[in-house]
Amino acid sequence: MKEADRERFTRQIRFLVEMDKMKNIYRQTRVLHEDRAENDAEHAWHLAMLALVLSEYSNEPVDLKKVLATVLIHDVVEIDAGDTYAYDEAGNATKAEREQKAADRLFGLLPEDQAQEMRQLWDEFEANETPEAKFANALDRVQPLMLNYCKHGESWKTHGTKREQVENRNRIVREGSEVLSDFVYELIRRAAEEGLLK
Amino acid sequence: MKEADRERFTRQIRFLVEMDKMKNIYRQTRVLHEDRAENDAEHAWHLAMLALVLSEYSNEPVDLKKVLATVLIHDVVEIDAGDTYAYDEAGNATKAEREQKAADRLFGLLPEDQAQEMRQLWDEFEANETPEAKFANALDRVQPLMLNYCKHGESWKTHGTKREQVENRNRIVREGSEVLSDFVYELIRRAAEEGLLK
Repeated sequence: MKEADRERFTRQIRFLVEMDKMKNIYRQTRVLHEDRAENDAEHAWHLAMLALVLSEYSNEPVDLKKVLATVLIHDVVEIDAGDTYAYDEAGNATKAEREQKAADRLFGLLPEDQAQEMRQLWDEFEANETPEAKFANALDRVQPLMLNYCKHGESWKTHGTKREQVENRNRIVREGSEVLSDFVYELIRRAAEEGLLK
Repeated sequence: MKEADRERFTRQIRFLVEMDKMKNIYRQTRVLHEDRAENDAEHAWHLAMLALVLSEYSNEPVDLKKVLATVLIHDVVEIDAGDTYAYDEAGNATKAEREQKAADRLFGLLPEDQAQEMRQLWDEFEANETPEAKFANALDRVQPLMLNYCKHGESWKTHGTKREQVENRNRIVREGSEVLSDFVYELIRRAAEEGLLK
């Protein structure tokens, strides 16, 4: 291997080793069959499975490869910036700045071409304007809601989350998928009826 | 939604909820920054990240979407069949039969067309004949080796694993990627020199 090729390969491996930290970023969502929080690596994998199975419900045709890449990397910035609970207003005020800095460092570990490509995907996800970003953002709302509902609202109860908060947070789902939006509101309605949400 | 559409959607969601169990299947590999085993969901996510970053090293051109789908689903059968340690000879004797049964049940949760599609991907992964399957299998060897090396051979020491066993297990990497195969043998050589492998 030439020196430049070796340097490229070393950067790629260093990035991939750094990615192991996603397994230690714990979210507010609980896994279904153990008494513990879900981590970002598990969450990203689960979103990718949703993408594989549910892409037919995207409002617009999507490039599935791009949706998969987006959901796989969408939370990588949390390695430096941490997970901010959806309904934590103080945390969300500084979230954007912390995450931009994290994106610079983390994607910057990669060779320049790949760093740009991943940064572009992440920026598109955040901007929520392309069909793939809209569908990825929809999945990113549907998955925790589905788990929360299956887990009898455990993390909603812990935080005293209100139905209105969950409804507002999930409005974005409709931009990516009307079918999934209907599903989400049906789950919220049931959760409220069953007393899982205030 | 029509009745048939609703039934299809319900099957898809049931499959995706069942997938949560991947977060509870623990492997022999340890995560780098906590004192615990890695689970199948984390492993599959990490493989997908390797696929995104390292696909240029596949011996043959690959359809990246297919590689991603393959690594995302390659261990789903372990929900029923459990994880079999690579160097457990007794466990490996019954592994194929247990996994076939698991594939019938788990992929069978999906609507017929998607069940067939995923089963096909998994069968191809197991047969290791297509370029995508070969590359996915290579990644499936590289990732635990990389983590084991970074974690100072912890799971090799626990099992008293020998250099020869690891070399044999990793021969398959060369079919998917000569570059990754060279990397793997370099890691094994270093691990042996550093006394991490017997």
